[in-house]
Amino acid sequence: MPNPFFKNKGPFNYSEIIKFLNLKQNTLIRDIKILDIKDLHNSKEEEITFFHSKKYKDIAKKTKASFCLTTVILKNDLPKTCIPIVVDNVLVSTSKITSLFYPDSINDDFDDTAILINDTKFKDKVNFGKNVLIGSNVSIGNNCKIGHNTILEKNVVIGDDCHIGSNNVIRNTLVKNNVKILDNCIIGKHGFGFFPIKDKNLRYPHIGLVQIEDNCEIGCGATIDRGSMSNTIIGKNTFLDNQIHIAHNVKIGENSIIAGQVGIAGSSIIGNNVKIGGQAGISGHLKIGNNVEIGGGSGVIRDIPDNTKVMGYPAKNIREFLRDNKWYIKQL
Amino acid sequence: MPNPFFKNKGPFNYSEIIKFLNLKQNTLIRDIKILDIKDLHNSKEEEITFFHSKKYKDIAKKTKASFCLTTVILKNDLPKTCIPIVVDNVLVSTSKITSLFYPDSINDDFDDTAILINDTKFKDKVNFGKNVLIGSNVSIGNNCKIGHNTILEKNVVIGDDCHIGSNNVIRNTLVKNNVKILDNCIIGKHGFGFFPIKDKNLRYPHIGLVQIEDNCEIGCGATIDRGSMSNTIIGKNTFLDNQIHIAHNVKIGENSIIAGQVGIAGSSIIGNNVKIGGQAGISGHLKIGNNVEIGGGSGVIRDIPDNTKVMGYPAKNIREFLRDNKWYIKQL
Amino acid sequence: MPNPFFKNKGPFNYSEIIKFLNLKQNTLIRDIKILDIKDLHNSKEEEITFFHSKKYKDIAKKTKASFCLTTVILKNDLPKTCIPIVVDNVLVSTSKITSLFYPDSINDDFDDTAILINDTKFKDKVNFGKNVLIGSNVSIGNNCKIGHNTILEKNVVIGDDCHIGSNNVIRNTLVKNNVKILDNCIIGKHGFGFFPIKDKNLRYPHIGLVQIEDNCEIGCGATIDRGSMSNTIIGKNTFLDNQIHIAHNVKIGENSIIAGQVGIAGSSIIGNNVKIGGQAGISGHLKIGNNVEIGGGSGVIRDIPDNTKVMGYPAKNIREFLRDNKWYIKQL
Repeated sequence: MPNPFFKNKGPFNYSEIIKFLNLKQNTLIRDIKILDIKDLHNSKEEEITFFHSKKYKDIAKKTKASFCLTTVILKNDLPKTCIPIVVDNVLVSTSKITSLFYPDSINDDFDDTAILINDTKFKDKVNFGKNVLIGSNVSIGNNCKIGHNTILEKNVVIGDDCHIGSNNVIRNTLVKNNVKILDNCIIGKHGFGFFPIKDKNLRYPHIGLVQIEDNCEIGCGATIDRGSMSNTIIGKNTFLDNQIHIAHNVKIGENSIIAGQVGIAGSSIIGNNVKIGGQAGISGHLKIGNNVEIGGGSGVIRDIPDNTKVMGYPAKNIREFLRDNKWYIKQL
Repeated sequence: MPNPFFKNKGPFNYSEIIKFLNLKQNTLIRDIKILDIKDLHNSKEEEITFFHSKKYKDIAKKTKASFCLTTVILKNDLPKTCIPIVVDNVLVSTSKITSLFYPDSINDDFDDTAILINDTKFKDKVNFGKNVLIGSNVSIGNNCKIGHNTILEKNVVIGDDCHIGSNNVIRNTLVKNNVKILDNCIIGKHGFGFFPIKDKNLRYPHIGLVQIEDNCEIGCGATIDRGSMSNTIIGKNTFLDNQIHIAHNVKIGENSIIAGQVGIAGSSIIGNNVKIGGQAGISGHLKIGNNVEIGGGSGVIRDIPDNTKVMGYPAKNIREFLRDNKWYIKQL
Repeated sequence: MPNPFFKNKGPFNYSEIIKFLNLKQNTLIRDIKILDIKDLHNSKEEEITFFHSKKYKDIAKKTKASFCLTTVILKNDLPKTCIPIVVDNVLVSTSKITSLFYPDSINDDFDDTAILINDTKFKDKVNFGKNVLIGSNVSIGNNCKIGHNTILEKNVVIGDDCHIGSNNVIRNTLVKNNVKILDNCIIGKHGFGFFPIKDKNLRYPHIGLVQIEDNCEIGCGATIDRGSMSNTIIGKNTFLDNQIHIAHNVKIGENSIIAGQVGIAGSSIIGNNVKIGGQAGISGHLKIGNNVEIGGGSGVIRDIPDNTKVMGYPAKNIREFLRDNKWYIKQL
């Protein structure tokens, strides 16, 4: 699937990519066109990908990409169909090549294409409040409501029967049907991802979206960042309470219930039917299984298998937690 | 007291209620009018209430309601003046009957009755900013200020000498005198209460209000949800710092001080002169006594008696906390 | 440096100050003019300062102030060049005298001087969105962007190349060059500082600013309160993720990285190159050294020396934390 929101300025020839990265070209390699950049899992033939940590070795072995930005050591795990491009810093090079393909994805400034909804084709279709603004490349389904001062910046697709409250700012987001977004949410801005450089950090592009599936509810004051390479996803019929932060690349399954002030750090994957109590935090790059229950205030710093109840900081099995806190019954 | 904000579509006859719930009518029971639905504590003669957990046995025994939605087991704790209506799922049936009496209380969409304050009777009475919107059924006292972009949606009563900042959305809320509400708050929306149903959760109605007593201050970015059956209350001269979440049915006493990013889950009751440190969390349905101090970052998961200092996760008496953390003096 | 934003109504004679506080004048003391009120560290000759806790003894000994509000016991630590003014409650008296010098600093209501940017001199200079409001005493540098519904209330100085998103409210703030402020932030309001008084707390004035240095990024939903006496400072090239709360008088160094939902309580000082994980909390009046790493979810309740990694609640050295949580490897 091509990127629905960010325009791909490619293809670029292999030789162009090499030149752009200030590398020495291997003239034995055919100077074919490279169509797109994607992650190891999603990339296909004639596309370029990146592989920066042995954590992803198993996925790397199966990548279909024709080229891969990687290191001297990791390149050996790539399949023969994938030509390694060895660089000093895989993530910095990936960032550069992503910017080359998608120059529009770096700028996250306010959308100055936005105009009053009264001046758009949605005027008669949508039930809207005062000062609603609509950017370019926005579509809205049937029977939708959009509250006062809400801004749908560029690159927003809203399905049918969606009710969006007031004071929201939404961009680069795909909202399916029958979704409720309450008030004061910021959805679809870039994640907190950058290269720390003394005196002037370097932001990398975020070409992913936020995808909110059918029947979800997003509480007040949520911040949901779009993905860097893949999408940030809120699964079907998952409900989020107020003041929740969902970082970039997070994927939450279906029928999950997440209480107030929870934070989920970047790239973590949450299963179906998961319940997370208020103020719990989940570290980045974790996998939380299906039917997991996480107690309020917990700090989860490792993967949690299916059907497990955890609590505490660091979060442990609820049985251990209760045993460790036996004293608790006696005092106060 | 009748519900000040949501219109009661009753009375409904006993037989109508029974039919609506698809139950078999007991013809021995007189088909009297039922005037209203309230909780066990507040309901009166000719009203219906609900009783779903033995936790509320003591209150149930004293209810004045004429009818009660309950279970086969719990019905024995009701007084003789209260006729039990036995149902499979008390909360779902309660939700249905509440919706019958108060159909307006389910919809929490943006208020499309809101108009610019310049076009209302408040134009000359209130000191207001740009783009202030006022819904139906709003009243504002003397010497009030309302900042830019703030929306008083339907069902808001503001007393005298109240200063409300910018970018707030307030509905279904009773604000007494000399209250300050800073910026970016969402006050009076429904709580995070619903029946989890695969693929399509079912929201239940919230017919309570938010009630903010004299001399309170509500910090920036607060979310304060209205009650489901009873009200969410912030007691006199209680101050809330920034980014606080107060869930539905919570009642906070007088002269309490609550620091930034605290979260209080549904139906918990906080006493007078309580101090809560930053980022502390309080689980639902707890009772925190008077003069309690809760250390920053604590996770409170059980009742706390009067005059107690607690800290930790789970929060314990401060003496125990210090003893358990003796190591703390030596290292780093 | 005179206060850039709040007008100093002084000087006041020594005798006026004494009278204002209902104290008995010492006629041996020359009735000189007092030009300003500042903290122990920043005050100079002919200025008044305050000293309320022995914690500040070392700074008190070196103060250059000519007068100091203090107690019978603490006055002995002042240098001979500083005349003590002994009061019952140092902080209350300081509050009164600050209000005398800076009466404008108490009122934190919405800025009713704000007008549409289209009607200001910035109309042709700035790239701005819809409904942008500008208060009095605002300046904006070159190449700046200001998003929809953002309000620059009175007393805001913005440097060059700053990109400010939508729905922000900013006042009493100095923003240097190349700063990004995303959406929904409230910056520059007074801190959560007041004297708790039964039935009617007493707010004290906040005459400090918020100062955001070059190349910073402030994430969505931040609340950054201005200082009471000194400034709240975000150092050069420090990046803040979403939903962060920075209380009054906090000073954060350069090149620091602070993840989502972190809270830093009043007057804490954070060094350079500090990394703070998501949802961590830092108590007030602490000193966190340079190159410190604080794990996500930690609760820091004491000073942390340079070059230390800490984690846990209370936060301890990472080695201790891992040792204490050895069990963690085996279970789940």
